[in-house]
This record gives sequence, C-alpha cells and structure tokens, in this order.
Amino acid sequence: MSEFAKRMEVMEEAALAIKNAFSAATNPQTISFTLGSIAKECLPVDKFKEIVDDIMTKEGRGFELLSYGPVAGIKDLRDVVVTELLAPKGVQAEADNILILTGGLEAMNLMCQLYIEPGDVILVESPTFFHSVEIFRMFEAECIPVAMDENGMIVEELEEKIKKYNPKMVYVIPTFQNPTGITLSLERRKKIAELGSKYNVIILEDDPYRDIRYSGEDLLPIKAFDKTGHTVMANSFSKIFSPGSRIGYIYANDEIIAKMTDAKSATNSHTSMLPQAVCAEFFKRGYYPAQHKLLCDVHRGRRDAMLESIDKYFPKEAKRTSPDGGLFTWVELPEYMNAEELLKESLASPDINVAFISGEAFFSEGGKGSNCMRLSFGANTPEQTKTGIERLGKLIKSKLR
Amino acid sequence: MSEFAKRMEVMEEAALAIKNAFSAATNPQTISFTLGSIAKECLPVDKFKEIVDDIMTKEGRGFELLSYGPVAGIKDLRDVVVTELLAPKGVQAEADNILILTGGLEAMNLMCQLYIEPGDVILVESPTFFHSVEIFRMFEAECIPVAMDENGMIVEELEEKIKKYNPKMVYVIPTFQNPTGITLSLERRKKIAELGSKYNVIILEDDPYRDIRYSGEDLLPIKAFDKTGHTVMANSFSKIFSPGSRIGYIYANDEIIAKMTDAKSATNSHTSMLPQAVCAEFFKRGYYPAQHKLLCDVHRGRRDAMLESIDKYFPKEAKRTSPDGGLFTWVELPEYMNAEELLKESLASPDINVAFISGEAFFSEGGKGSNCMRLSFGANTPEQTKTGIERLGKLIKSKLR
Repeated sequence: MSEFAKRMEVMEEAALAIKNAFSAATNPQTISFTLGSIAKECLPVDKFKEIVDDIMTKEGRGFELLSYGPVAGIKDLRDVVVTELLAPKGVQAEADNILILTGGLEAMNLMCQLYIEPGDVILVESPTFFHSVEIFRMFEAECIPVAMDENGMIVEELEEKIKKYNPKMVYVIPTFQNPTGITLSLERRKKIAELGSKYNVIILEDDPYRDIRYSGEDLLPIKAFDKTGHTVMANSFSKIFSPGSRIGYIYANDEIIAKMTDAKSATNSHTSMLPQAVCAEFFKRGYYPAQHKLLCDVHRGRRDAMLESIDKYFPKEAKRTSPDGGLFTWVELPEYMNAEELLKESLASPDINVAFISGEAFFSEGGKGSNCMRLSFGANTPEQTKTGIERLGKLIKSKLR
Repeated sequence: MSEFAKRMEVMEEAALAIKNAFSAATNPQTISFTLGSIAKECLPVDKFKEIVDDIMTKEGRGFELLSYGPVAGIKDLRDVVVTELLAPKGVQAEADNILILTGGLEAMNLMCQLYIEPGDVILVESPTFFHSVEIFRMFEAECIPVAMDENGMIVEELEEKIKKYNPKMVYVIPTFQNPTGITLSLERRKKIAELGSKYNVIILEDDPYRDIRYSGEDLLPIKAFDKTGHTVMANSFSKIFSPGSRIGYIYANDEIIAKMTDAKSATNSHTSMLPQAVCAEFFKRGYYPAQHKLLCDVHRGRRDAMLESIDKYFPKEAKRTSPDGGLFTWVELPEYMNAEELLKESLASPDINVAFISGEAFFSEGGKGSNCMRLSFGANTPEQTKTGIERLGKLIKSKLR
C-alpha cells in the first residue's frame, strides 16, 4: 500500500498512550476515574429537547438548521460567547473575532494548521493534556516541557526556554489544569501575556474548565492581559453544556480569525448547526445561571468526596493537589511505586477494580510521572468515589516499603 | 506577529476563489444558481423533530447523546451505512470499516493528514470541486489535472500521468460530478480501480451525489471493483438527509481506518452525537425510501426545468452537459465570452440579477474555463429557474459576435 505521511508515524506513540489510558475503563463493573467528563446528572436533556421542539417548529427555523450554515458558526452563538462568557471574565470581544468549532480540541488542530511546520517548537506544561500533544505531534511539532509548581507554569523557565528554543507557540491550560487541577496565578497570567508580546510568540490559552469553579476567587484569563493579539483563547461548551454536542470556540485577532476561517472551511466546512442553535438558545432563555449553579454544586460535592477520601484512605506518603474547580486531581505516590503496574493489579483484582490514568501519559518528554496518577472526579457519585478510593488506597498501602 | 505556516499561503488562492464565487449570492433579490444544496422542501424537518423527541425521552438516550461518544461514530449509523447505503450498491462492507465524519469534506482533510507530504502529487479531474482543491492545497499537495470527456476522467491520460508523476492519490467524483454533472462510465470505473492496484496509488472516490439519480441506470462505484484496498470511498449525508447536520463517512480497509481514527481523534475527537443518532433512526424507522423518492422527484423536475430552459433561452452556441442526477449542469459558452464578466454585468443589472459560478474556479491548473459556468439547479423552483435562465440567456445572446 501507499506510504503514510511521516506525521502519522510521529503521532503514533501519542495516540497509543491515549488508547492504553482509556482501554482500562471498558468493564462496567470498574469504578473508573479516567474520563474527564461532567456528571451525567448535569446534562440538560429536558431543556435540550424543549428547545429543539420550539426552534424546529414554533420559530420556523427547521429548514435553516438542516441547511448549510456559515463557516464562522451561527451569529447567535458567537454573541452568547461575547456577552455571556467573555464579558463577565473581563474580556471585551467582538462576535467577528469568535469562530465556532467542532469541540474545543479543534482549536489546537486549526492553530497547528495555521502555524506549525515540521520541527517547530511548542512549549507545553509538564505535565499536560495528552490529546493536545497528540495533535501537536500529528503536525510534527517538537513539544518542549516547561516545569510547573503549585502556581502553574514557572514563568522564569518559560522565558528562558522561549529565548533558547524560539517556539512558535506556548500551550497553557491555565485554570484547573488537565491533568493536575492546578491554577496559574494571576501574576503569572499577566507575565505570560507579556512574554507573548515581547518575544512575538503565540500564547494558546486552552481554558475549558474555567467556568466550573467550586472555591477560591475567579482569575482573569491570560487573554485579558494581552495588548498585542499574541494570545489566542480556546474554549469549549463540553464542560458547561454538553460534550457530545461538540461545540467549542476560539477568540483571536482579525488576522488569525480570517486565516482560521479558511482552515476551518478546509477541515469540515462548518460545525453542525442544530447543536449550535440549541446551545445559543439555552443561554438566551436564561437557563445558564441555574445550570451553572447545578454544575458547581454537584461537582463541588464530588471534588470534596475525592479529596477527603484520598486524605482518609491513601497513605500519608501520597501527595495530592487541591483543585478549586475542574475535574481532576493529581496524586504523586512514593517514587518507588509504579502507577501503571498498580493499575494492572487493580483491574485484575475483583476486590479493587478501580481505573485511573497513570501519570506517564501526560509528560510529552516521556520517562516521567510513573509514580503519578490523574484522578477524575466528574463522572462518579461521592459514594462511588469513596468506595473506589478506599479500595485503591488499600492497594497502594500494600505497596509501601 | 508570528509567521503563518507555508501551507496557509499555498491555500490562499484557492480559498479566495471560493469566497469570490459565493460572495455573488448575498443579495436576496438575486436568483442564485451558485450553491450545491438540495431543495429546502426536501429537508426532513418534521421527522427530525419527531425523532429527537422520541430518542431524547421515550428511549432514554438523552444522556448518552449529550455525552462523549466513540471516535468512529455511533454504531447504529455505521450499520445503516453498511446495510442501507453500501450493500444495495454492490459494496459488502463491515461496520468496523466505516468512520463517521463531520461532513463529507472531512474525508479529504483526513486523507491528506494520512498521506500527503508537501509536494506530493494528487491527480484530479479537470475541472473538479474547488473545496477539495482548497484542502489539497492546505496540505501543500500539487494538483495535476486529468482531462475529462462526456464519460468522465479519461483513463488513458490517467495512466500516463500516474506513470509520469507517481501520485499519492487520484481524486475522482464519479457520479454527477461537481461541477460538470458528468458520470464516469462503468468501464472506466473498473479501470480506475485496477490502476490503483497496479500502480499502488490511492483512489479517493468522492461520491456524494450517487443516490440522487433522476434518469439512466445506476452504476457500481469504483470501490466495488477494488480488490486490493487501494480505493477509499468518501460519502456524505448532506444530499440525502441534511447538509447542516454535517455527517459524512468514509469506507476503507482496516489499516487506513485505524490511522484515520487517530487523525479524526486529533482533529475534533468525534462527530456531534445527536445528528448522528437522528440520522441513524431516520433510516431505521424506514423513512428513507419516501425521502429518496421525494428527493428524486423534486430534483428531477428542477433539472428538467434547468435543461429545458437552457435549450430554450441560451443561444445555440452554448453547450451544456446532460446530468442524470446530482445538482449541477455545466455550460460552455463561445470562447470569446468571459463568464466572470457576464456575472458582474448580470448582478449589476436589476433586470438580470442572476448568479452562477464562473468556470475558472474549478480548474486547479488555472487559466482555463473562463467561458464556462456551473449552474446548480437544487435550490430553485422550476419557475425561478426558468425566469433566471431566460434573463441570463438574454444577456448571453447580447454578447454573441
């Protein structure tokens, strides 16, 4: 057969890591802390149905929604992004600077189409989200890690690496980061925006968790400090509305939006119309504040159950992060432990049978994180979480030296 | 600002041609023969709404459809493709060899991700569909044209050019081709499949119009003659169900589907769930045969109106194709006429005010087709078509030398 392009070979390892990570969670008996999805109870099924009913008939928009639509996405939804999601976060945008995407991850794909030549450097957090790394690898970018501490990406190291590697982009998940749950401090947000301007490098701010905060104070996004257009903000409706609808958006300056509209057109023409329209209408009918409260209440309870259970059932040698929102906490076990082996043992033992994602998959540089695990708390009830963490704690304790 | 990747520069010309082509049709007073969409009356709005109602509540699938789904697409829809769309066309496929896409065009994007390195050659029909050329250009492929006659791509020239250029892919729209409406003969279909196997080159068969045939006999797809897996079949639900839903699919061998699933995951994770589920259910409830009959009846009338009007109102010097289905006819005017200038004059004159796409945009090689026009007959009633073609004929006749 014909030879595949080199990029497919380059991405293979990243793709495999993801498949391995999720393949653990196929047994319905398993308590799974793998998937980064919100609680099923928070999906607005009834409102969704009500809105489809209304707009397909009463409002006579059925033909429009089943027909081809604008590449940029429907205007109503871009308006919602501007007024309901960006303005309250200190970002004054115009609807023409918003492009609606097929899920938040498409932003990373399209940004690569715009900027990445094989061998270009992207600076990423260490650890970072493996799906984004998979995309960067498909475009044959070289991912160079920047260390994090409890306040997120360390900006002194970032500046050094910008000087050293002359990257095309810096990829940051500033709020309740995936996989650590860590939030980038305000001061560092400001500094990262400045570094983008100073060194003429794109800051790709991927911020899908920002609106599900359960404690602590809201922080302005990096984009709010951007004076030169070097920061591009990617976001998603997957954590605040519905992941299966696949709706995301990007906010960027005129030049980038114009190019990205061409790249979107050459990817899949435009995003599916009905999910866009339902989502816009959901906000326009004023359903979001109650939805937002529900999301925060439910997930606050789930986070608390996760953190309390870890404190109660994991050995004191295990260190965890303290996420103020989002869906993840990150646990560092003693260095002599291997999370991948723990996972295998856990799944092979009917008394444990708990899944998580072992840390290695999140380090683009490889060879790190083998004693770490990402624990997602969105998909399980507090009771399931307590049971699962108690069982997992038992296994971990049995490995203490 | 940071420099864009070279691919964005390469695609710019193609993107501009498309924007120019469609920008003509923004005035609602204009009779527009530009857009390749089906009749509004054929969009199954009521059935769509009925199905959403049922599956979101009665069948309790609401949570599932608002949640993350499989990268490959939902199984029900892949089954529908296999049993309702491929089997009746002589193609025996397995659901595991189907990947659901966000519209048919995504197939071209993903095939390029899999195969195209900058400078790789793709052989295309001359003329061909400009959106696909736009995608090929974004991946920095070199498009080399292969001439067509009234039976489609000329296979002797194709074989010569395969030998000469060693292409990665051959891109063919075999049935009611966009933009010409021409159908590739059965003999040539067989031959193209053989050439793919013989020279180890991928045949990308893009066949979105095949199911809307109004006259003549159904022909087996190229894929039906493929014995080695070199032919990949791309298709779409845009012409038989709804373009705004953005659902397409690709059928290929195991190796290609596996790689493409990785590339799809790294593009937008998966296609929006609800449109997939509604489409699958539409077929499972047996609504497609009536929908198909409606589609064919309505568009047969629209095609007849278009062809009869051209014969009646265009000068005898204008040559047209005779499409047996699809949405397009192609008109060749005397060589001294310039379709782009005709279009400008048409839109500037309130008595004419008819839009079409002038031929040049469809020739990847450039410098050809300036005396040609693509006329889409899907979006207008027979009466509108008669009026528009009569007016346009008047303008064309006034230019006869």
